Amino acid sequence: MTRWTWHGGGIAAARTHFGDGDAPWLDLSTGINPNPWPVPADLAIDWQALPDESGLAALERAAADHFGADPQHVCALPGTEIGLRLAGDVLPAPAAYFAPSYRTHGDMFGGARPATLAEAGDDTLIVANPNNPDGTTHARESLLVHRGWLVIDEAFADHAPELSLAGAVSDERRLVIFRSFGKFFGLAGLRLGFVIGPRAVIAKFRARLGAWPVSAASIAIGIAAYRDAAWIASSRADLRRRAAALDAVLARHGLAARGCCPLFRLVETDQAEALFERLARRAILTRPFDYDPRWLRLGLPGSEADLARLDTALTLG
Amino acid sequence: MTRWTWHGGGIAAARTHFGDGDAPWLDLSTGINPNPWPVPADLAIDWQALPDESGLAALERAAADHFGADPQHVCALPGTEIGLRLAGDVLPAPAAYFAPSYRTHGDMFGGARPATLAEAGDDTLIVANPNNPDGTTHARESLLVHRGWLVIDEAFADHAPELSLAGAVSDERRLVIFRSFGKFFGLAGLRLGFVIGPRAVIAKFRARLGAWPVSAASIAIGIAAYRDAAWIASSRADLRRRAAALDAVLARHGLAARGCCPLFRLVETDQAEALFERLARRAILTRPFDYDPRWLRLGLPGSEADLARLDTALTLG
Repeated sequence: MTRWTWHGGGIAAARTHFGDGDAPWLDLSTGINPNPWPVPADLAIDWQALPDESGLAALERAAADHFGADPQHVCALPGTEIGLRLAGDVLPAPAAYFAPSYRTHGDMFGGARPATLAEAGDDTLIVANPNNPDGTTHARESLLVHRGWLVIDEAFADHAPELSLAGAVSDERRLVIFRSFGKFFGLAGLRLGFVIGPRAVIAKFRARLGAWPVSAASIAIGIAAYRDAAWIASSRADLRRRAAALDAVLARHGLAARGCCPLFRLVETDQAEALFERLARRAILTRPFDYDPRWLRLGLPGSEADLARLDTALTLG
Repeated sequence: MTRWTWHGGGIAAARTHFGDGDAPWLDLSTGINPNPWPVPADLAIDWQALPDESGLAALERAAADHFGADPQHVCALPGTEIGLRLAGDVLPAPAAYFAPSYRTHGDMFGGARPATLAEAGDDTLIVANPNNPDGTTHARESLLVHRGWLVIDEAFADHAPELSLAGAVSDERRLVIFRSFGKFFGLAGLRLGFVIGPRAVIAKFRARLGAWPVSAASIAIGIAAYRDAAWIASSRADLRRRAAALDAVLARHGLAARGCCPLFRLVETDQAEALFERLARRAILTRPFDYDPRWLRLGLPGSEADLARLDTALTLG
């Protein structure tokens, strides 16, 4: 089961291992919105030219408006994953990270150690808000007391703008924030993320990325999606509704859902491993964790039908 | 004119500066194939899911076959630009680079110095083959005599596979090669490149990039394009024909074209700055160089009509 405890995704590997009995596979192994921003069929994507700097600037402005940040503090990335790994070059060691959390946080800095806010001292501290996989949230003020560089991974913050510290970033504060496009907008295949930080930090990221950090598709789709206030508002409401419905199904099967991020729920049960296998044999992929075999994370089913399929699989085993 | 001596591209800035008199603008400022691989309108691009590892492996196999390399030595990148900059972390300093060449080569390693092969000693040496902007080529054997790590930027080698050392990469050789997808295939907006190196080097690149280095579009388009042997063969022939026609037009205007890369030509003239301005006022963007004001690089016009437009602009001034 090692393959599935590493990161979410990996339906192809799951099909090879578990077969295609109840195909199509239902991928609940990630925290990606199953009802994505609808990419218009006629959206103009210029694959030919190098992405123009004015397009990149427009993308960063649209994203900054959505984040509530100043555009001069925002830099587009070809996926947050790469950005997190670059942060290890840009920010000072030693580093500490909240654990358990997103696996990459422990790989950003050589010699990084898990720590609480109280234990982190002056170290660069990496924390996710909301946290992944358990959906725990931190009040903004509680994080700002950290004395060293504070790196907040807000990959799952889009549903709840009141959690974000994007607007608190300034040249005077040792605060760096990562945002992900693909999760809330449901378009993880695009590979688009953002780092928000003091201008000196942003300049270092730009130097590491070079002149054309993101694709023409990221620019075209990112601008249109971040500017789509109506879709953003209705998706926030829809995610809340669907997450409540998922909680109700889980509760009916004796599984208490943890966390308050609507894109995923964590359940804790002695039967987690058996549950993972049982669901996989019914072509439903969830996310187990090697460091806690009692945990299973479930992404949000995107429709009544998918939720009913999960309900049935939990009932019949 | 500083904006245009930095990198190619930048039509938006050129429009602002020179106006739109003879619009549409003809962009001859880059070395991107003006007749791209035709992306099928119905090509399935899964923007929703994280790119599956099997898709990434299939892309790297298709690219390796095209390069004549072993797939286990090939790693996909979200653009060669980022890969070149990561090489400064992965390979040892001190470093030297052939000059003049692609500007980024001097930015990859702190303290890198321009040097010839004879001057480079045991340093990590970066060289482009063919070179950009002058189109000079190096015989493969002449490069392999270098004693230190050798980094070859083969961004413009697709038209002439006999130039490439991709097949010479092995775990025993201090040889790393970069390839670009966007130039020969004319799809620079995709942001896709590759690094080819010893497995230990490839592992370090993968650690820096994380699990999802390239987009779903890069996987879908890259696989289909690298597997399109008929298009590749006819494009090689077409580029040779068009480059010869460009040379003939330039010669008629007293401009001797240098280099043997069909995607661009370098001309050397006392009138280079005036020529840049004159063409720009007719909405034709070319590429000047701050370090040699006598140089102007012209990308390949993609049609008879575009070549005729250049011819007219050179005639009328």
